[in-house]
Amino acid sequence: MDHKTPTLTSTSNALIKQLVQWQERAKARKKDGVFVVEGQREIDLALSAQFEPSMAFLCPEINPEHNKDHQKNQRLAGVKTYLVSPNVYKKIAYRDSTEGIVVVFKSKNHSLETLDVSNQNPLILIAEAPEKPGNIGALLRTADAAGVDAFVLANPKTDLYNPNIIRSSVGGIFTTKIATGSTEDIISLLKARHIKIYSAILQEAIPFTQADYCGPTAIVLGTEADGLSESWRNVSEANIKIPMNGTIDSLNLSVSAGIIIYEAIRQRSL
Amino acid sequence: MDHKTPTLTSTSNALIKQLVQWQERAKARKKDGVFVVEGQREIDLALSAQFEPSMAFLCPEINPEHNKDHQKNQRLAGVKTYLVSPNVYKKIAYRDSTEGIVVVFKSKNHSLETLDVSNQNPLILIAEAPEKPGNIGALLRTADAAGVDAFVLANPKTDLYNPNIIRSSVGGIFTTKIATGSTEDIISLLKARHIKIYSAILQEAIPFTQADYCGPTAIVLGTEADGLSESWRNVSEANIKIPMNGTIDSLNLSVSAGIIIYEAIRQRSL
Repeated sequence: MDHKTPTLTSTSNALIKQLVQWQERAKARKKDGVFVVEGQREIDLALSAQFEPSMAFLCPEINPEHNKDHQKNQRLAGVKTYLVSPNVYKKIAYRDSTEGIVVVFKSKNHSLETLDVSNQNPLILIAEAPEKPGNIGALLRTADAAGVDAFVLANPKTDLYNPNIIRSSVGGIFTTKIATGSTEDIISLLKARHIKIYSAILQEAIPFTQADYCGPTAIVLGTEADGLSESWRNVSEANIKIPMNGTIDSLNLSVSAGIIIYEAIRQRSL
Repeated sequence: MDHKTPTLTSTSNALIKQLVQWQERAKARKKDGVFVVEGQREIDLALSAQFEPSMAFLCPEINPEHNKDHQKNQRLAGVKTYLVSPNVYKKIAYRDSTEGIVVVFKSKNHSLETLDVSNQNPLILIAEAPEKPGNIGALLRTADAAGVDAFVLANPKTDLYNPNIIRSSVGGIFTTKIATGSTEDIISLLKARHIKIYSAILQEAIPFTQADYCGPTAIVLGTEADGLSESWRNVSEANIKIPMNGTIDSLNLSVSAGIIIYEAIRQRSL
């Protein structure tokens, strides 16, 4: 940051309007190949994961450190930086209390071809067409905690860089290898790499604890409402289910994922 | 329902104002010993769980069946019933699209003394001071799915009948035995009944898969932010932890609960 750092005080500023578009509209993010991250912790995780920052917005009234050549911002050295007034920050920040820092990053390519699983015995979590950003974020937290080799979104219905996904993943979106693709392409890839598919499908299912996850494994979950598409039926090593012992027969998607993935980890640790 | 069923069309009606208070304010619920449930499925679950309805509000414009002596409402026979106009329904319903039915129920006593765990080898889930209603609701879904003998809230910070807990539990709040009490009283009870305590505490913890949950067991979790209070440290059979293999060291509370509880179920099924 130098003395020429411009200060933006108007919410009608063209760049601020653009930033709001990037926050709010998946199309705008896709068109320009960028997305927006707010909060120091999430930004640090994105930088550590080699996401490339393209511009930064700092509000010194929220965090006076932003006025200085602060250690934390060394990692943003060379990045075009703007100071913003509190009213502008309120406009561009999706949440309150995100430490007065918003950074625009360049999107990564998450196509299946980029999925370089170097582990010879991978454990992969796949979710087909989850709709709620909060569910995807929670899955990413679980994927990070479990340390899966990759998280794959099949037939995605939501832009991966939706601010609610970023927020609810608590940064998990940056710490896990993520790929997206069509269900058919994903199945082809898994078959080609001899990765066994265990699909959460109730029909002809075995209890999830009876499957063997010790080899190369993909665990596949559908939505809470509709489950998995037909495509997974005939390609699975086994259909698996979590025994439901209650009345409402309902587990949150990320809870189901956590239960099955940690059973795989338990088996692999024996 | 008979021909004298009154129809309420004004949101200024005193009873409607009272109902809104019960929806919005824990104090009002506590004072009158009631709470509000909307949606046919949740109401059916509450009735099945022997919660006592005290009054019902039906909007025939949303569901024309509400104008008739409909099968579904037989279970509300004898309950004081009001028809409401769509504008009133919108005022009293916490969500949209809840099938035009809202029922006020009498609260149950959830004190520890009511906790009659008849199972000689109980599995109990305990959460200390969770703050977010959505987290408590998700825990209740997990508790229902796992079929735990009881769910105990220690040092509760939120009214159990908060509409967001009811909603996010998808009815799990009615299908699981629930008790609340102070941490000290809960520990006394567990000790008196020779129920082993496994606390999710990082210090001196063993991996959760190495604990033995086959006897009478209580699994105790604190908040994501602060963990468990000191009181649990010296009373635990073992401190347990879920291995974190990623970067952000963070699992959602209900995901953690699901992972540990289903490990207990797995061990018990061997």
